[in-house]
Amino acid sequence: MARNIDGTEISRVMRAEMAQQVADLQAQGVTPGLSVVLVGNNPASQAYVSSKTRACETLGMKGQTLHLPEDVSTEDLFAAIDRLNADASVHGILVQLPLPAHLPYKAVLEHIHPDKDVDGFHPRNAGLAFVGDPRAFVPCTPAGILEMLRREDIPTRGKHVVIVGRSLIVSKPLASLLMAPGPDATVTITHRHTPDLASFTRQADILIVAVGKQNLITADMVKPGVVVIDVGQNRVEDPGSPRGYRMVGDVDFDAVSQVAQAITPVPGGVGPMTITMLLANTIQSARQALQARAP
Amino acid sequence: MARNIDGTEISRVMRAEMAQQVADLQAQGVTPGLSVVLVGNNPASQAYVSSKTRACETLGMKGQTLHLPEDVSTEDLFAAIDRLNADASVHGILVQLPLPAHLPYKAVLEHIHPDKDVDGFHPRNAGLAFVGDPRAFVPCTPAGILEMLRREDIPTRGKHVVIVGRSLIVSKPLASLLMAPGPDATVTITHRHTPDLASFTRQADILIVAVGKQNLITADMVKPGVVVIDVGQNRVEDPGSPRGYRMVGDVDFDAVSQVAQAITPVPGGVGPMTITMLLANTIQSARQALQARAP
Repeated sequence: MARNIDGTEISRVMRAEMAQQVADLQAQGVTPGLSVVLVGNNPASQAYVSSKTRACETLGMKGQTLHLPEDVSTEDLFAAIDRLNADASVHGILVQLPLPAHLPYKAVLEHIHPDKDVDGFHPRNAGLAFVGDPRAFVPCTPAGILEMLRREDIPTRGKHVVIVGRSLIVSKPLASLLMAPGPDATVTITHRHTPDLASFTRQADILIVAVGKQNLITADMVKPGVVVIDVGQNRVEDPGSPRGYRMVGDVDFDAVSQVAQAITPVPGGVGPMTITMLLANTIQSARQALQARAP
Repeated sequence: MARNIDGTEISRVMRAEMAQQVADLQAQGVTPGLSVVLVGNNPASQAYVSSKTRACETLGMKGQTLHLPEDVSTEDLFAAIDRLNADASVHGILVQLPLPAHLPYKAVLEHIHPDKDVDGFHPRNAGLAFVGDPRAFVPCTPAGILEMLRREDIPTRGKHVVIVGRSLIVSKPLASLLMAPGPDATVTITHRHTPDLASFTRQADILIVAVGKQNLITADMVKPGVVVIDVGQNRVEDPGSPRGYRMVGDVDFDAVSQVAQAITPVPGGVGPMTITMLLANTIQSARQALQARAP
């Protein structure tokens, strides 16, 4: 029976460490600050944003939301980002996605100063991360997965990591990080055009699934002893639950747990790590701002 | 017996097409210009640089070399690059590597304006290429390999590409390009920490080897019908040759040719494509400069 990799508990430990780092920075006169730009009134986005700013405050950081109307113009949104770029008390800027369709989201993300791009979506950060530069802000989900593996003492060197999915914000940065010197994994990236997916997933020592398709990975598709990281977030109807639905991942959790060595649950696996890494990136940005200021 | 993939012939065809593109740009008042910065007197670097500028001239482009002394200061090198960045007749800037040890080569490469970085080594271009942005200059060797596969009608969709080596300028960009929508390959990246390399190389429909180790890939390590791209460039002593040495790749060419469907020779495979793609990137840069100027 697989061990559960408990993202909530790992996050709790990390956030306790980070509260100390925040206190140390405050002693040097800097309070790490995150500004979240929220456009419109999408309820899911509002919930995400408030959980991000609340998490900041719990650690003693400054978390603020800049709420703009649904019909904000590109120019006004750029001007708002410019003000945050110029504000020395703001170390991290995040534009909550999705944006309304009239806004050019790529140009918006590129408008954030790369030194404050704690989501790691600016091409400069993608490039720095690609070449393994430590100044890069690594996107939060891949960074969280690496941190989980590290803290769970799951070695990656010489292991075969198979990634299902090829998204720009999860799978591609993960592949780049895991194959690099240090992690030293052999990495295979599979996707919708991979014939006989199971022939690849069965080779995995570590299987990372980030597609968004319930029960994509079944027990017969994995090798006994595999470590499974499930990044999927799928809503399934559940009349018994107060909200009428519950969240599941891309992996048939109950069946795969019988075969795997360790597995992340959904919810409570990768999810909590993502916000934790956002906080970590904001603290890193505050530290870099402090160092840049030093004589 | 494997078909030879003839990089010299593919380059000849491409350069004829490109000469026409250059003529079209000249008709619009723009002659694509490449400036190569050469520091010091390394004979191999001098030979590379002159083959690059000569290739420019053959196509009707402007190729110039800025030759700086071995002991040039970082400041003077930066100032020279600044002048090329500001010069509207220069569309591509390339700093020939390796640089003398006293120069910070990463900072030097980042000093080139990303819009003129035809080698594709600036973090901004690495980031744009990573996210599949068409404005990116893709590093010349990976771009050349993709172009070869395309022109030889070798499909990549649904194929398993195994890359041996994980270098930043060849393997990682290749992996990123090949797994993207369009090429749609399943990609595995292996390297020195991969145990039982042959168990991976034998799975390859397309095997790309970029390590720099003679005879790393032997006939028993490949599947019958594989396509082999050999990026290796190794000198071996050869008293019978005028220079006393000859170049070989990373693949045991004669033995693997008995098993493979198609294979690139060394020399005459990937090598000629690399300079061809440098010229292509310079023409792309000139075209983008012209478009930016248009009303």
